[in-house]
Amino acid sequence: MKLYEDQRAPNPRRVRIFLAEKGIEVPRQQVDIMSEEHKDPAIANLNPFTRLPILELDDGRVICESLAICRYFEAVQPEPRLFGTDAFDQAMVEMWQRRVELMLFMPVSYAFRHSHPRMARLEVPQVKEWAEANLARIPGMLDYFDGELGQRPYIAGDRFSVADITALCAVDFMKLVRLSLGEGHANLRRWHAEASARPSASA
Amino acid sequence: MKLYEDQRAPNPRRVRIFLAEKGIEVPRQQVDIMSEEHKDPAIANLNPFTRLPILELDDGRVICESLAICRYFEAVQPEPRLFGTDAFDQAMVEMWQRRVELMLFMPVSYAFRHSHPRMARLEVPQVKEWAEANLARIPGMLDYFDGELGQRPYIAGDRFSVADITALCAVDFMKLVRLSLGEGHANLRRWHAEASARPSASA
Repeated sequence: MKLYEDQRAPNPRRVRIFLAEKGIEVPRQQVDIMSEEHKDPAIANLNPFTRLPILELDDGRVICESLAICRYFEAVQPEPRLFGTDAFDQAMVEMWQRRVELMLFMPVSYAFRHSHPRMARLEVPQVKEWAEANLARIPGMLDYFDGELGQRPYIAGDRFSVADITALCAVDFMKLVRLSLGEGHANLRRWHAEASARPSASA
Repeated sequence: MKLYEDQRAPNPRRVRIFLAEKGIEVPRQQVDIMSEEHKDPAIANLNPFTRLPILELDDGRVICESLAICRYFEAVQPEPRLFGTDAFDQAMVEMWQRRVELMLFMPVSYAFRHSHPRMARLEVPQVKEWAEANLARIPGMLDYFDGELGQRPYIAGDRFSVADITALCAVDFMKLVRLSLGEGHANLRRWHAEASARPSASA
């Protein structure tokens, strides 16, 4: 089994944190996106969309998409549950994972990829107005999630879940668009400090 | 239990098809997005993002996000399995569901929402250049999925899954941006005809 990833990219980090929370070790091969190594034929053969991470199983089968890789390991080794427990809890994790991804992670990603000069060759066309529209949306989303985190310890409820992993990667990804949590985000800061203090955060 | 939805919108359709495939009936309340009924306080109280569909359980608990609602019912009534069977199959369904959503459903949605005059009040700001960039991406994605469907009967493998539901809604959604499957898309047309012939398609 081998995980193709880039130590500096946010999506591979989601899988690294997930695996660390499960206590699962997988051999990794670094692929440097900034040097466009992910466009090498060896990677394109594994994922036609040339995105990372990619998990290659011992029998040669391949799983792409961070969340699909995470779900594979959740099924192989259910504990600790990172996609929820009973039916309603599973729905809450899916709902919050998607809200964080659609409302925070993707806006940060769009704001970065459609504005940064280093991304001009990877994101074609770069649409500056789309970057600006997404950048403008982020502070309101932080206010929203701050309010939610005033009501419970973790993003999706009383337990750490894959929704917290996506949120942690999104908030840390904000550095690349020069945004950070504000003084008014006391709940988000409490949550971020706790999530960052988990050993998995530095995986 | 009540499902708040809009009979004409693509996301609620995903849930309707999913429920029909499971043989589950849920009372529905229509909310007309074009008349902005989804912005009424009654809906905003259930979903601050004022998006549909929304599932309200008998005890008052609320699930938003189409896929979260689907996962709830998958856990409550596992058969027929629409999110995959064993660990690898579950990963394949997640991977293909995401690929269809990210590479087809969302580009169609962006192309429509950021260009159509009727969406100007719902999508602020409308970024025309973003609509055009997404519209331009769709034909290549159709070619890609056509190639994949030459290798297996359904999007994610040998069984109908939630990935097919997302794909069916995405392809039918293309009408709104004046695109359709081409003569060269023989595999996609075969798949689309079969998926459309299932009773669930008209749910």
